Amino acid sequence: MATVKGTVRVHFKDGVLDPQGKTIHTALRQMGYDWVSSVRTGRLFEIEIDADDPSRAQDQLREISQKLLANPVIESFHVEVHS
Amino acid sequence: MATVKGTVRVHFKDGVLDPQGKTIHTALRQMGYDWVSSVRTGRLFEIEIDADDPSRAQDQLREISQKLLANPVIESFHVEVHS
Repeated sequence: MATVKGTVRVHFKDGVLDPQGKTIHTALRQMGYDWVSSVRTGRLFEIEIDADDPSRAQDQLREISQKLLANPVIESFHVEVHS
Repeated sequence: MATVKGTVRVHFKDGVLDPQGKTIHTALRQMGYDWVSSVRTGRLFEIEIDADDPSRAQDQLREISQKLLANPVIESFHVEVHS
């Protein structure tokens, strides 16, 4: 049994409103950072799993992303396994 | 003036409690995913900036990360510029 580390990044799909990103963008411009043209927020999960078969780790992370970490209606996710 | 895209990843520093990650970890185990051994959450920002000098984009993103996106007391951040 090996411990495998992975990262799941969750983003809003294109076209989904991101009010938090909009607020951060407005705040940055008010602070004088007028060269910022767009801010989109997302979520990040650093996950460690006990993998019988490290080659399956990507599938394991995809499964928990689909089931719990991301809302597939409005979000997409990207899984990365660290060697 | 070029538009440069970058990603800022914000993580809790080691030793900082992450109750959201703990809750997600507990939920995953209750769902039967008992091979998950650790979950740490973070935040993700996809940012577009208007850069006079694209080679400065990394510094510009670092500056807004320090000033607004991350809380340097409890969080660290990582900036990546996409070419």
